[in-house]
Amino acid sequence: MQQPNTIALDGMGGDHGPSVVVAGAAISLERHPGLSFLIAGRPSEIEAELEKHPVLKAKSRILPTDIAVAMEDKPSQALRRGKGSSMWLALEAVKKGEADVAVSAGNTGALMAMAKLILRPMADIERPGIAALWPTIESECIVLDVGANIGATARQLGDFAMMGAAMARALFHIENPTVGLLNVGVEDIKGADEVKQAHAWLKDAKLPLEYKGFVEGDQIGQGVVDVVVVEGFAGNIALKTAEGTARQVGQYLKDAMRRTFFSRLGAFFASGGFKVLKHKMDPRRVNGGTFLGLNGIAIKSHGGTDAYGFASAVDLGYEMAQSGLIERLEEDLSTFHAALGAEIEEDKS
Amino acid sequence: MQQPNTIALDGMGGDHGPSVVVAGAAISLERHPGLSFLIAGRPSEIEAELEKHPVLKAKSRILPTDIAVAMEDKPSQALRRGKGSSMWLALEAVKKGEADVAVSAGNTGALMAMAKLILRPMADIERPGIAALWPTIESECIVLDVGANIGATARQLGDFAMMGAAMARALFHIENPTVGLLNVGVEDIKGADEVKQAHAWLKDAKLPLEYKGFVEGDQIGQGVVDVVVVEGFAGNIALKTAEGTARQVGQYLKDAMRRTFFSRLGAFFASGGFKVLKHKMDPRRVNGGTFLGLNGIAIKSHGGTDAYGFASAVDLGYEMAQSGLIERLEEDLSTFHAALGAEIEEDKS
Repeated sequence: MQQPNTIALDGMGGDHGPSVVVAGAAISLERHPGLSFLIAGRPSEIEAELEKHPVLKAKSRILPTDIAVAMEDKPSQALRRGKGSSMWLALEAVKKGEADVAVSAGNTGALMAMAKLILRPMADIERPGIAALWPTIESECIVLDVGANIGATARQLGDFAMMGAAMARALFHIENPTVGLLNVGVEDIKGADEVKQAHAWLKDAKLPLEYKGFVEGDQIGQGVVDVVVVEGFAGNIALKTAEGTARQVGQYLKDAMRRTFFSRLGAFFASGGFKVLKHKMDPRRVNGGTFLGLNGIAIKSHGGTDAYGFASAVDLGYEMAQSGLIERLEEDLSTFHAALGAEIEEDKS
Repeated sequence: MQQPNTIALDGMGGDHGPSVVVAGAAISLERHPGLSFLIAGRPSEIEAELEKHPVLKAKSRILPTDIAVAMEDKPSQALRRGKGSSMWLALEAVKKGEADVAVSAGNTGALMAMAKLILRPMADIERPGIAALWPTIESECIVLDVGANIGATARQLGDFAMMGAAMARALFHIENPTVGLLNVGVEDIKGADEVKQAHAWLKDAKLPLEYKGFVEGDQIGQGVVDVVVVEGFAGNIALKTAEGTARQVGQYLKDAMRRTFFSRLGAFFASGGFKVLKHKMDPRRVNGGTFLGLNGIAIKSHGGTDAYGFASAVDLGYEMAQSGLIERLEEDLSTFHAALGAEIEEDKS
């Protein structure tokens, strides 16, 4: 029986294992007192951490296992050796309907492979995608795929648009989210035929989203659309490049503020402002890659994050669980596929 | 006869035409008094601007034409209508050996199409690339391709490595530049076979560069390598995303410094530091995409830049012209192609 608002946690995932997972769940529980947890992992270790968080302990059940997927395991190894592991049990809880969402800080490749095996892709979905929340000037947008696959057909890009729109509807509470296709600015360039084809389809089909056409890399952070669609190679590179650039500018700023007595004095007076900036740029605030296109939601937290960052991933899981996203997405996808009808069949591989 | 250090300018290119081109050349001439210029465009307009810069006037010759490629022209239109245009004449001056480098702020697609037609790809090069200078924490690195083409075979990625290394040698004066292949972090992911193949070749071949393996998007700005190689779609998206993120963080900073009386006061005291930061982040400082792989060097300046930004593109042209890059690159490429021998032939399309 499904408990409302139950989240299954891979208790052993991530660089820090149970200490971060349990402490993160405790932070998220303070914000969302209606949550319950299933925590998969070594009982002695999980229990020791739960002792520190009595409120959480009362809302948690342990799914006991001694098996853990290592951060360096390849997906194939994880599938071979990981049956019954903490990652496995968390996903299985979603599959069985005992939890609404699974959250793991374990390694991405292993989690994706296992999630595909256990939750299975939704009917008529060729490839699931990983969606990231991307901070914009005003708020946030959703970017996908950020690395589930390399390359994407036009149909798969269209599917990503539907998945991203469903997630935007769930998180931003907008009925018709705006969607853009990430493209390069150079006109008339050869290649990227799949992007052009997806553009043509999205432009013409009657879909539950507002398609805005092509967007370029510098427009993502401006928040020109709610959802940015791109194949996983370029999407992953864009995400990592943005993270790196933000850190780089932060470093420039630090160096600049240390230069002279006056700049150090100014930095002291402005420290309130810098705190706001630091908060705004804190990567832990938007921690969590969401696997979309499976019969159940799995969220990947950064492996190296702390309890505060892990709590963000749990919060995200909570919001997704509230939303009935999967049912709605199933509907949207069949609308899209029906709209494309015979034409799209040719593209299927 | 080739004048040493002569740069051919597309006098009509860019959003602002001759006013920015001529003023930019004047700034660059102050820094490099040995330079001479050929300026292609409408004589009356160019002359009017040159009147304001007597030193530059004495070092310049006008290549008269009334034809100008429009910023919105498609490459095919530019080729059809642009014969004898200011862009054409600047490239032709390089072809004829009258100038070392051509610099244009005109539109990228048109410039690339025309440069390929006039300068022609180097022997055995399938595709030229566009290289960007990318600011790093410590200095700068070179990233290519940032949008000449979409997609790249393993051989083409290898060629980009040679081109980037030649440029790094010219600009950074390092005999064996470090080179990395941009890839995504997820292990064992399907696809990107061409990246894996290029990796294998670069790892094994004896080449005039130090191959460092894969790098990820967040490592570009850390300056872990001198040259980052990527196909043009992901490269263009990475470049634009980094530019957008830097602007976005700048906006956050501005907002944060305006929040309270103390933060405004602090920002006042720290204004020297902010000036350093602004200079460090000024996109005009690294203005100029370099077309590599042609029998001659062409540099694309941002169309919307001002005189200071255009001067950076001219400075870049000067450094490239000094370097004997083309001759050296020809040698390196034949070393690379010979090293790969028969194996690489299969990959040729």
